[in-house]
Amino acid sequence: MKYPGKASVFYKTTTDHGNRGMSLEEDINVTNEYYREIDKAIIYKKPTPITVSRVEYNSSREKVIREAYFRIPSTTDYNGIYKGRYIDFEAKETKLKNFPLTNIHKHQIEHLKRIAKHGGIAFLIVRFTSLNETYYLSYEDLENYLESVKKSFVSHEYFVSKGHLIKEKYSPRIDYLSVIDEIYFKGD
Amino acid sequence: MKYPGKASVFYKTTTDHGNRGMSLEEDINVTNEYYREIDKAIIYKKPTPITVSRVEYNSSREKVIREAYFRIPSTTDYNGIYKGRYIDFEAKETKLKNFPLTNIHKHQIEHLKRIAKHGGIAFLIVRFTSLNETYYLSYEDLENYLESVKKSFVSHEYFVSKGHLIKEKYSPRIDYLSVIDEIYFKGD
Repeated sequence: MKYPGKASVFYKTTTDHGNRGMSLEEDINVTNEYYREIDKAIIYKKPTPITVSRVEYNSSREKVIREAYFRIPSTTDYNGIYKGRYIDFEAKETKLKNFPLTNIHKHQIEHLKRIAKHGGIAFLIVRFTSLNETYYLSYEDLENYLESVKKSFVSHEYFVSKGHLIKEKYSPRIDYLSVIDEIYFKGD
Repeated sequence: MKYPGKASVFYKTTTDHGNRGMSLEEDINVTNEYYREIDKAIIYKKPTPITVSRVEYNSSREKVIREAYFRIPSTTDYNGIYKGRYIDFEAKETKLKNFPLTNIHKHQIEHLKRIAKHGGIAFLIVRFTSLNETYYLSYEDLENYLESVKKSFVSHEYFVSKGHLIKEKYSPRIDYLSVIDEIYFKGD
């Protein structure tokens, strides 16, 4: 049956970027919660860095921040431990066909480089919302691209060829540890 | 020479809790900065978790947080990587003779337990400000104490016998990685 007066309902569905309409950040938070619940890995999102300028007490003697500013993060958003290894990554969404490097701060790339050098597992999770595809890209492959291709973006093609497509499921939603198993723990 | 009129100078020295009058948090932040500079370890303090309720834009179109609340942290304050190992710890000061367990949240102890179980290096750094002594106490030794001694504090004696006194220096100020070297990397 058709209800011409209710066309907005259909529009709503098409503006959903993911299959469940969740942001990548929400998907990853739920995934990390699942990993912690089944005791598979202990990985958290770091709080957003904020500079607090003014604090007051309200009538219930609770501290209320009345003036504060968002700071540019000096590291990535996520870190933790999996199978004894240090894990560190940044997650980004883009509506574009390619992944613009302006989406990620230079010192975040620098941070991933240091982590990889110190023996940690460093990577990006990038979702192309228009294609509904989410990729794992290791820091090492990102570095290879940045050093050989002097562009302001990482092409979608590169994600297809060097990245790992993460299939979205009900639970865990974004099972990025299965990619890490494949790369680092294949013999286990 | 004695200047009886300037006795306050002497009082000032005695009210300093550390040799440089810095808080433990400041000392650890400076220490971690030093470790990163010499590329020895990549360890950061996590930002303080905050729930933002209201944001405005000021006249220079900058986002200003106008209402926000401090949240109880669900993990510890510090984590990172050293010699390929995942590092995780909480740092606390006390003016008391013993270390009260109310100083550390239950879920933070729970978090350290999980980290240790997953192969990470988990510990506390505790400063007794009245004695100007700073100790490293491994999660394992903390657990042993909590399981055998049913008290609301960890005694200073226990830190002396099972903890590791961290000598304060000019740089790095709180060289806790030297304790980790001794415990985990002695043969290296």
